[in-house]
Formats: sequence, structure tokens, C-alpha cells
Amino acid sequence: MKPLNIGLIGYGFMGRAHSNAYRRVGHFFDLDHEPVLKAVCGRDKDQVGAFARQWGYESFETDWRKLVSRPDIELVDVACPNDMHKPIALAAAKAGKMILCEKPLAMNSLEGLQMTRAVEKAGVPNMVWYNYRRIPAVTLAHDLVAEGRLGRIFHYRAKFLQDWTISKDLPQGGAALWRLDAKVAGSGVTGDLLAHCIDTALWLNGGIDRVTAMTETFIKERKHNLTGKVQEVGIDDACAFLARFENGSLATFESTRYARGHKALYTFEINGEQASLCWDLHDLHRLQYFDHRDEGRLRGWRSIHVTDGDHPYMGKWWVPGLQIGYEHSFVHQVADFLDGLAKGKPTGPTFRDALQTQAVCDAVLRSARSSRWEPVRRY
Amino acid sequence: MKPLNIGLIGYGFMGRAHSNAYRRVGHFFDLDHEPVLKAVCGRDKDQVGAFARQWGYESFETDWRKLVSRPDIELVDVACPNDMHKPIALAAAKAGKMILCEKPLAMNSLEGLQMTRAVEKAGVPNMVWYNYRRIPAVTLAHDLVAEGRLGRIFHYRAKFLQDWTISKDLPQGGAALWRLDAKVAGSGVTGDLLAHCIDTALWLNGGIDRVTAMTETFIKERKHNLTGKVQEVGIDDACAFLARFENGSLATFESTRYARGHKALYTFEINGEQASLCWDLHDLHRLQYFDHRDEGRLRGWRSIHVTDGDHPYMGKWWVPGLQIGYEHSFVHQVADFLDGLAKGKPTGPTFRDALQTQAVCDAVLRSARSSRWEPVRRY
Amino acid sequence: MKPLNIGLIGYGFMGRAHSNAYRRVGHFFDLDHEPVLKAVCGRDKDQVGAFARQWGYESFETDWRKLVSRPDIELVDVACPNDMHKPIALAAAKAGKMILCEKPLAMNSLEGLQMTRAVEKAGVPNMVWYNYRRIPAVTLAHDLVAEGRLGRIFHYRAKFLQDWTISKDLPQGGAALWRLDAKVAGSGVTGDLLAHCIDTALWLNGGIDRVTAMTETFIKERKHNLTGKVQEVGIDDACAFLARFENGSLATFESTRYARGHKALYTFEINGEQASLCWDLHDLHRLQYFDHRDEGRLRGWRSIHVTDGDHPYMGKWWVPGLQIGYEHSFVHQVADFLDGLAKGKPTGPTFRDALQTQAVCDAVLRSARSSRWEPVRRY
Amino acid sequence: MKPLNIGLIGYGFMGRAHSNAYRRVGHFFDLDHEPVLKAVCGRDKDQVGAFARQWGYESFETDWRKLVSRPDIELVDVACPNDMHKPIALAAAKAGKMILCEKPLAMNSLEGLQMTRAVEKAGVPNMVWYNYRRIPAVTLAHDLVAEGRLGRIFHYRAKFLQDWTISKDLPQGGAALWRLDAKVAGSGVTGDLLAHCIDTALWLNGGIDRVTAMTETFIKERKHNLTGKVQEVGIDDACAFLARFENGSLATFESTRYARGHKALYTFEINGEQASLCWDLHDLHRLQYFDHRDEGRLRGWRSIHVTDGDHPYMGKWWVPGLQIGYEHSFVHQVADFLDGLAKGKPTGPTFRDALQTQAVCDAVLRSARSSRWEPVRRY
Repeated sequence: MKPLNIGLIGYGFMGRAHSNAYRRVGHFFDLDHEPVLKAVCGRDKDQVGAFARQWGYESFETDWRKLVSRPDIELVDVACPNDMHKPIALAAAKAGKMILCEKPLAMNSLEGLQMTRAVEKAGVPNMVWYNYRRIPAVTLAHDLVAEGRLGRIFHYRAKFLQDWTISKDLPQGGAALWRLDAKVAGSGVTGDLLAHCIDTALWLNGGIDRVTAMTETFIKERKHNLTGKVQEVGIDDACAFLARFENGSLATFESTRYARGHKALYTFEINGEQASLCWDLHDLHRLQYFDHRDEGRLRGWRSIHVTDGDHPYMGKWWVPGLQIGYEHSFVHQVADFLDGLAKGKPTGPTFRDALQTQAVCDAVLRSARSSRWEPVRRY
Repeated sequence: MKPLNIGLIGYGFMGRAHSNAYRRVGHFFDLDHEPVLKAVCGRDKDQVGAFARQWGYESFETDWRKLVSRPDIELVDVACPNDMHKPIALAAAKAGKMILCEKPLAMNSLEGLQMTRAVEKAGVPNMVWYNYRRIPAVTLAHDLVAEGRLGRIFHYRAKFLQDWTISKDLPQGGAALWRLDAKVAGSGVTGDLLAHCIDTALWLNGGIDRVTAMTETFIKERKHNLTGKVQEVGIDDACAFLARFENGSLATFESTRYARGHKALYTFEINGEQASLCWDLHDLHRLQYFDHRDEGRLRGWRSIHVTDGDHPYMGKWWVPGLQIGYEHSFVHQVADFLDGLAKGKPTGPTFRDALQTQAVCDAVLRSARSSRWEPVRRY
Repeated sequence: MKPLNIGLIGYGFMGRAHSNAYRRVGHFFDLDHEPVLKAVCGRDKDQVGAFARQWGYESFETDWRKLVSRPDIELVDVACPNDMHKPIALAAAKAGKMILCEKPLAMNSLEGLQMTRAVEKAGVPNMVWYNYRRIPAVTLAHDLVAEGRLGRIFHYRAKFLQDWTISKDLPQGGAALWRLDAKVAGSGVTGDLLAHCIDTALWLNGGIDRVTAMTETFIKERKHNLTGKVQEVGIDDACAFLARFENGSLATFESTRYARGHKALYTFEINGEQASLCWDLHDLHRLQYFDHRDEGRLRGWRSIHVTDGDHPYMGKWWVPGLQIGYEHSFVHQVADFLDGLAKGKPTGPTFRDALQTQAVCDAVLRSARSSRWEPVRRY
Repeated sequence: MKPLNIGLIGYGFMGRAHSNAYRRVGHFFDLDHEPVLKAVCGRDKDQVGAFARQWGYESFETDWRKLVSRPDIELVDVACPNDMHKPIALAAAKAGKMILCEKPLAMNSLEGLQMTRAVEKAGVPNMVWYNYRRIPAVTLAHDLVAEGRLGRIFHYRAKFLQDWTISKDLPQGGAALWRLDAKVAGSGVTGDLLAHCIDTALWLNGGIDRVTAMTETFIKERKHNLTGKVQEVGIDDACAFLARFENGSLATFESTRYARGHKALYTFEINGEQASLCWDLHDLHRLQYFDHRDEGRLRGWRSIHVTDGDHPYMGKWWVPGLQIGYEHSFVHQVADFLDGLAKGKPTGPTFRDALQTQAVCDAVLRSARSSRWEPVRRY
């Protein structure tokens, strides 16, 4: 096994999820490379040091430029807030490092395009952490669509519902709440949640042609954690849009952080001429599947418990009937990336794939402002 | 259409359910006979009169012997408490009337045997109101088992859970609460609820060979509505038993009125070598079905919404997707009875079928007393 | 009990549903009026005659003008295809009859406005058969919203999914398939299915301010049953729209007849600051309810089995735990109408209420053509 | 952090699950001790060597006696087949090692008693891997019962259903199939699956007083992997029993490997006077809870998504809404054990706790042979 030296930037929720994936992948997958936790970087010396100890990083840095320039780092993992993705990615590409970047790729398509060009020019392996593709039930859904099981596709619908920002006393900005700060996050639910929905949709159902959208900010002002002042909220609290796919199917997308009762309810459904399927992050180990070719009186939605040995990835884990969780999607993504590395093949979603998702996000936000249907730019 | 003159005895919950079925059957089923609501009988003149008016009975009686002897009555429907089933059935058989009897058939097998012999000797059409056989999803379950779809049967499990007698302040006896009075009801949940489970089980899975049971009376004393005194409670509040079917399968049965949160949760499940199915009265329009012959990675429990035109009985009602309810099972049973009448064939469950259910109930109660496995007598 | 003489026009699916409601309402509800099935009208003499016999109508007509002019008819029930609603309603109003009209009220708002003015001018009781308001779980949802249980409303989402027109071999037009014929139906899923969603939404969540929509006709040509020729399909097979309510909440609506696996999946969800609820026609006896005021670690979506005595309408039916079905919503609507009649009060949805639903439908179809946000006209 | 040197015996399914737990616990829990993977032991040198490399064990042994006697081993983890639990535990206790033992504790109560006496005499920390107690939803269930939320308990029901041995072509015995070999496993589903159900039941609902049981072996003969001959199958394929708890509640238990459609469906339900709850291993992150104290018309079963920060263990993992899986229960058990170690307190289930579960299993198997109610011996 060849070591692969990782340098992680950011030690929040995603820093933990990625570290966990690096730590675990070798116990379950047979790979040519073994991730080595070489360094982690964060601005707060005490906190990043504690993180390094907890996860077994060999060293830590407080300046990302230093980490990127370290010769012993082969792969830079960008797990910090959105506004830092571009400068880090550009520097890492220039330094010839492989790059794994948290989603959304960038603050907007323009940034995303620059980043994509940079990694492509540098010829470095690159990937974006749209992890939900690697939940086994979602991968199975993809396989079924790709095999043509569903026939002609008529409809796609997705939503991502949360309820954690309903309280008007919640402040914005700072370490834990940067997602509410437009300057750091770029957008609200569109880049945070809908980006996931869009990535999956493009992967399952092909390109989106045009969209019409609406956004809303329900709480107009919140105290800002960094300034201490009550400031206008710049992000979208909720966003919904209609879309036309290139294959002629129609879609509805919706996301909000004001759907009381839903913590992380990402769902999608796809209706084809012969079969339909739907999935739900709150019970992520199940895929609902309906096949019109079943005998008439016995047709019904099948609740497939995606934990069998012949289900994607599941042969690597426990025994049938025993479910895995959210975090395993990151392990699978690392396993696939390392497998691609061994074979010299890119592993999706690449920066270019994620750029296209960014283009849809941009069209959505543009439509919300223009109140018109907006075409999606193709990259 | 030939009229069929009905005389109903009892005007409680079941009197309403039966009247409703007679009133409706002709609007949805094409039959040779039309039920005519000739007379209803009850002891309270005012109440039975009001009932007759509400449901359109042509007349009413306060003495069941009089109703049974009326020459214009062709069919006697016994919908009164259990202790009156035998005398009425014997008299009606003697008078040459057809008899439909509420379940359980009798207070015990001995009574049931006398009643069965009486109707068989008289040669009158007879049927017992185990209505759940005619819920379309249950009928479909029966069809699938009968076709051999499930293969060899390994397991059967059924339960009927309620929670309406948990309060110790609830009295026993009298019009609304005769089911708590052992002298009138014969037994508690065994005859009231498990009898339903057993009827379905015998119909789906064949004979039961032997059982071991336990019963419990959680509230030992309750005020009696008729005497006004606190008296010992004679019925079983809960009953569970293990059983061996003649086909070699194993079973568990359970019933209680102390299962907080369940109003009328009758469920059954049957596991065969090739397929399994389960059903639940709280969502009675669905059948859960699992077929091992489905492609491996796509196996799952199918939730069949039993509302299509090719589902049992459903072609007579509305359009696919629109569910019917509890009461429709009675309409179906009347339709089948009238169909059998036209064809000169008995319609199950007959008195003899219901006698066998009674035999299982008797064995269960005997085992609860003896603390031993008890064989089920075959009739 | 005072008789109320009904004249029904149309004897299809809805003619049966209404007749069933008239026949049943008196057995379960205590009312001052008793519907009398005086006459039914249809163009095919044999078929309408058979219908009259099956449901016990005293007479039948083949010319609706004749029925409307009969002095013994007090209430005209319009249950024929959409293109005939206006002429019949205008004539019936002129004749001073009460009018119950199937939904959608009219082919478009203009027609609807004429009809509304006619009944208001004539001062006759009027109501439109948006029956889903009277499914007990939906009524309970309304009660909870009306009581303010949910707090400020953020989101509304509804969809009505079917799959019965996917086959391209299905013809359009004629008795059974007039819903596919734009000249008779006015529109496709918008008037047929979304109209239901909109009626409920307006009732629960108040007025809709503006919409942006898209429609699609997946199968462009179908054989026409009346002409025998392959003709362009003029209806919308699918329609989705975004909406802004007057109360500031955001909504998504969608309907299609191309959602494989769904027969009649009408669902709605409403998210409020304090609580959320959702409902589903495929399990119509349940209401899902989430209350943020529950103790934190015990919060969860409650699956309320709406069959208790203290649930809307349910005290009139059977016992807790035993579900009713689709058809009962019509019984409830008749009961409420007769109750309103006795009290001299209008019963919603009146023609005017339904006119507002029509106005939303019009704006939706207008937006689908203009590709712009369209305001909803207020009536 | 103090190192804690682990010596693992067995490298099958459970060897992986335990190793995974040791590897992960320190990343998520703040503890005084850090497990060090010192050595793993197995009979096949190549295989145990590969396992050691994959999981990072510092060394491996092929003779368990050698591992037990190594002075650098502080804790012996017994993860090999049942027939080896006793000799290893006795030797490890004698050597003064802490012992974690896979379930069931022993082949029978007699062995279990010897083992319990040995660890208690040696005064070494000991624990048995009944891991399901530490699934957060199960722990929450325990908390609710312990707080008295449910009131007086009336009913307990549990089942553990699988379907992996239905094929008669499946052989018995040897590495992967020792669970079918009575000489190695001791019993079939009783020790393998019901033991889990019993452990949870005793923990939640107190002691079991007496039982009546039945067992069945559906496939009487299977080829034996070690002898190559077709031999009688000695284990129970299925087992069901009725039980009386000391608190007066009634119970049904069932387990089988012949329930087509269920892979690992462990479910339990408990009905109390005030509230009920149920849980299901196939959706292990949810707890169903019904509380009679809720407002009448809004009562319903709550589906609690046990992923919030105030749910047991969940504050250590990701964010609300994101589920964990099966394996995490082992991580929690190690965390609790290490926490107990730091505090000098035993962590349940201890050997003595597990001995009581064994006593119930023994009574069950005894009853299946005697066809009588059998008392459970108290230890």
C-alpha cells in the first residue's frame, strides 16, 4: 500500500467527516493507497491542535498557504467555508496538489470556472464532496436509471427541508453560523442544500435546460456574531424552482430551513414510463421502487432495505439487514477516489461536474431576482 | 330481483353495520335478490322504534320469538349479545329461516355444535359474520396463499390489540359494555378479538392442531352496570397463545384491550418459503407482500394499495387509488351470501366453519387454565 | 323530516358518488331534510334508466332542460362534464333551484363569474363538490390551522399524482375519456386535479397572490373516440407551479397523470413556526402532525389515526380504529349542506369560493403560456 | 490518555465489529483510556495475519492460551464461537485480565455460572457484547421506562426474524456456518437471536418469572462442512415462547431464520398504562412512541428520529437528522466500558447480567422439550 499524504484545511463538521473517512476506508476497502493524515490547518491554534490530536494528524498549521506549499502534502482537502475555496484551490493547483473540495464548489460559477480551469490546466486529480451520490440506495437508484429500467423519464422532484433557523434569536456569522452569512456562504439554502439536490439530479437525469425560481428571507435581520450588530440577512432562507431537463422531463425543486419537523429531509423521486423510484435521507438505507411490469394485482411500492451483499458498497460492511449511516457515504467517496487514482481515471463529481451544478444554482438565483425563466449555462 | 325479507335481532353497533350492508349491496353488486328490511327486534320499544325509522325497517318487534315466528321473515340476522345466539338460532332453524349470526358463533363449542346441527338438520342457509375475510386485501392474501404463491408455510402470527378498557373506572355489563360481562360474552378478548384472528388463520393456513395459552385479567373488579355493585371481572383482558398448525407451521397469537395506542390493530403475517405477506386493520386497504423470486437487489416489501379494478371486490366501487373502509366488508359478505343463495351454494364461514374457530377458542381457554398444551377438537 | 327533491344530471363516476351520499346521509346524520331521489338525467335512455333503477330514482329524463324545469325538483345536482356546467347552472338559477355543481365550477373564470352572479342574483343555495375538505383528517387539519396551532405559516406544498394516461394507445374523448378532450374538459390536470389542491389550499392557507407555472403534454396526439381520427391533444398532461400566498408563505404545486406508481396521490403539507402537518389521499384516514412544543427528545411526527369519536364527523360512524373511505367525504358534504339549509346559512365551498379557485387555475394556465409570473385576480 | 492493551480472540464478523469500535471510540468520545490493538488471535495464520494488517493490530497469535498469558495484554476480548467462551474466560480471569465476551455468554447457564464466578472471584472488569442496548433509540426507550413514563406495564413483545437458512442446500458447520452446528453454537435462534431480545427485555422490563415455549427444526438434515456428510441438524431453526414478567406483565417472544423477507428484523414493543413504545432494528434510528396524555384528538404514534443532540450518544456524532448505523452500538459500548473503568464502576451487561439471560434461554429450551411452563432460575 502506497501512502497518500493528506493536508486538510478546516476542522469543523466537514473536517471531521472527511477525517473519519480517511481513517476508516482502509479497514473495509482493498486499495492501493493508504491515506496518511499528515497535517490539518485552522486559524485557531488551540482548537486545530486539539483536533489534530483527536484524529491523529501528524502536524497542524494555522496558515493555509503554508500547508499548501508543504512538499510532504500530496492532496489538499478544502473543508473550510465557501469564500475560501477559490484561493486555496488555485494555490493548490498551482502547487500541483490533488484537490478534494467541499461543496458547493465556489461562491458562483465564475469562481467555479476559474477553479476548474486551474485544476484541469495543472492536470491534478480533483473531486468535490457531493457525498450523497455514494449512499448505497442513491447509487442503486443511479444504476437503475442508467440501465434504462425506468424507461422515458417524465418527472423529477427533489426537496431538502430543514428547520434549524426558525428562531429569530439565532445570530448569523462566525464559526458555527457562517452558513447564514452571505459574504462567506455566497447564498443560503441554494448553495448549501439545493446544490446537493442538483448534483444528484444531474447525475441521475442529465442536464437542466432552464429554470424559474423564487427565494425568500423570512427573518430579515439577525445579530451578526462578528460585528455584534443587528444586520440585514443576505442569504435565501428558502428557495423553490421549476425546471425543464434536456430529456424533456419536468421538475420541481425546493429547499428551506423553515420546514418545522424536518431536520435534514432530502428526498428525490423520479417517474419513468415503466418504473419510478424515490429516496429519503431520513431513512437513507431504503430505496422505494415501483415497477409497472410487476403482475397487475401485485404491483406496489417496494421498500428495498439496501443492505445486501449485492447492493452497492454493502458487501464491504456488515451482514444483510444491518444498516450503515450518513458518514459512510464519505468513506465510499474516498474509496472510489483512491480506486480512480490507482487506475488513472477521474472520479466524479469532478470540479467540472460541480461547475455545472454551480451553473444551475446561478440560474436559480438569477431567476429569483429577474422573476423570469432563465437558461442554464452549459460548461 | 327477488326480495329477501330480513328480520334483524339487535340494533347496536353490529345491527347498524348489517343494516348498512343490506341497504347498500344492491347499488354496487348485480344480484338476484334484494334485501328487504322487514323488521328489527330489540327489547327497548323506543330505541328499537327509532332505529327502525332511521334505517327504514318496515316494522319492529320487542320479542325475538315473535320476530322469528313471523311468516314474512325469510332470514333471521342474529346481531345481539353472545348469550342469545343459541336460543335464537335454534328457534330460527326450527322455523326454517335462513340464519346469519354474529361472531363468535356461541358461548362455547358445545353450544356451537348444537347450533350447527340445528341448521344442518333444518337445511337452511347459514353464515357467521366474520367480516374480515371480505376486506379486499385479506381476500387477496387468501387468493395468493391458495394459489401456492408462498410455497411451504413456516410461520403465522396474528394479534388484535386495543386499549379501551385500561381505565379501572370503566364499569362492566349492560347495553354498551356487555363484552366485559362474562355471563353475557362467554369470554373476553378470546371470543371477541382472537376469534377473528383464528377465523382468518384457519381460512388462510388450515387447521390448528394444538395450543398453549395464557390469559390475564388486569383489573380484577369493576362496578357492574346492572347490579350497581363492584363485582369480580370474569373475562380475560388479554390472551396469548402458541399454536401448531396441521401443515407444520408455527404460530403466535395475541390479543388484549390493554395495548395503549392501538384502537383496533388486527394484524397478521404469514411467512412462506417463497413469499410472505402481512396485513393490518389500521390501514386495511393495503397488503404488504414480499416475493423472494424478485431480482435480488430489487427485493423489498411491496405496499400494495388494494384499490384496483383487478383486486377482489374493488371493480364494484370507485376508481383506482380511492380507498373503501371497514363497513364495506359487510357489504361484500352480503353480496357473496346472496350470490351463493342464487347458486344454491353455501357461503363461508358457515356455522360449521365457525364451530371450528370456537373449538380453537375453547382449547385456548382450557390451556390457560391447565397451563398445558391442549389439542384442538376437530368438528 | 322534510323531503328535499333532488334532480341529478349525469350518471357517471360522480353521479354514483352523489347518489350514494344522498342515500346514506340520513342513516348516520340527524337532519331536518331527507334527500329524495326524484329524477336523474342523461342522454342515453337505456343507460340512464338502468342507473335510475339501480339507485332508486323515481324517474329519469334525457333532456336536462326538462329536468331543470320540472316543478317537483328543488335541487339540481350538476354532475356532467365541465362544458355543460354553465348552461345548466344558469338555467337552474333562473328556475330558482338550489344548485350543487361538480368541480371545477366552470371551463374558466369568465364562465365561473357568470354562474356565480346568476346564483347570487337568484338567491339560491349553491355549493361546489370539492369533497376533500370533508375527509375527517383534512377537516382536522383545517381546524388546527384555524385555531392558530401552527403559528406563522412559512410553506405550503401540494401535489396530485396519477399514472393512468401514460399509454400512448389510450384514446381521448367520449363518455369515459372526456377528461382528455380539451373542448369538453377545458383543461387537463389543472382543472381536474390541481383544482382540488387549490381549493384545499385556499381554505387552509388563505389567498394566493401570484404564480409561475409550466405545463406539458407528453403525448401530443391521440385517437379521438368521437371522430375516430388521430387528433392533437389539447389538454395539459402535467402542470407545476410556484405560488406566493397573501400571508407571505411560499408554495409549490404539482399535478400529473404520468407519475408511474401513483393512482390518486393527493398530498399536502403545511409548515408553520410551531407545528407542521401533512396528509395523503392514499391513506386518507391519517393525519401526520409535528408539534415543536413537545418535549425535545420526544418530538416526532405523529401519525394520527383519525377515527376517534372526537375527530370531525367520526362520531357518526363506527368505533375508534375503524376507517371510513373516499365516498364518505360526499356524505359529509351533503350533511353539512342540509345542516346549512336548516339554519339558512351558506355551506362552502360556494360558487364564489370555487370561482376563486378557478381564478388561480386561470392564472396558472396563463403563466404556462406567458412564461411569466401572473397575478391572481380576486373575486 | 492511558493506553489499554487489547487482545482479541476471533476475527470473524464480531472481530471486525469490535476492532472497528476500538479504532473509532477515541475520535468521538473523550475518555481516559485509549484502546491499543496489541494482538489478535486465530487458528489460521495467514488469515489472522491479514486481519491484523488490515486493522492495525501490532501482532497476532494462533494459540489463544498464548495470547491470554501475554503480560502486555490487559483486556481479553472473546469474539470466537460459543463453545470456546468458557475455557478462554476462565483462563483470562485466572490471568487477571479484564474480559469482554461475545453473546451469548455461554453454551448454557451452568457454564455461564462458572464463568461469572470466575470473573467475580478474580475481581476483573467484565462485560458481554449485547450491543443493542446502546443503539440510541433503544437507550432512549430504556430511559423513558426507567423514568416511569409508561406507567404500569401490561405487555411486552419481541421478535427477531431472519430468512437466511431457508434453502435446504445450505450446509452446516465450519468457519462461516458454525451457528448451525449445535455442538459449537449450543443452540440455534434461542442463543443467537432470542438472547438479544431477552437481554433488552430484562433491562427494560425486569425479571422473567416463567415461560412456555416451542421450537422447530424445519430442515432436519444438512451436509456438514467439516465431515462432508449429511448429518442431523441439532439446532432450533425457530423458537417462540410466552412469558410472565415479575412485574405482572405478559410477553410473547419469537425468533426464526425462516421468515422470508426479513433479514434482521429485531423488534420490541412495550405497552404501559400511560404510554407505549416500539422499535425496529431495520430502522434503528427511530423510536415509535405513543403518549395517552397528549390531547385526545391529536394522539398518535410519534416517529422519533433519534438523531438530535439531546438523544443518547447522538451529541457525539454528526448533526440532527443524520443517522448512524449498526456498528455505532459497539462504539458506544466501548465508550461506556472505558468510562466505567475510569470511574471504577461495572458496566452492564456484566457476566452476571448475561447469566440471567442465559437462565431464560435455558428455561425456554427446557420448556420446548417438556411442553410445560418452566420457571426461570434466578442468579
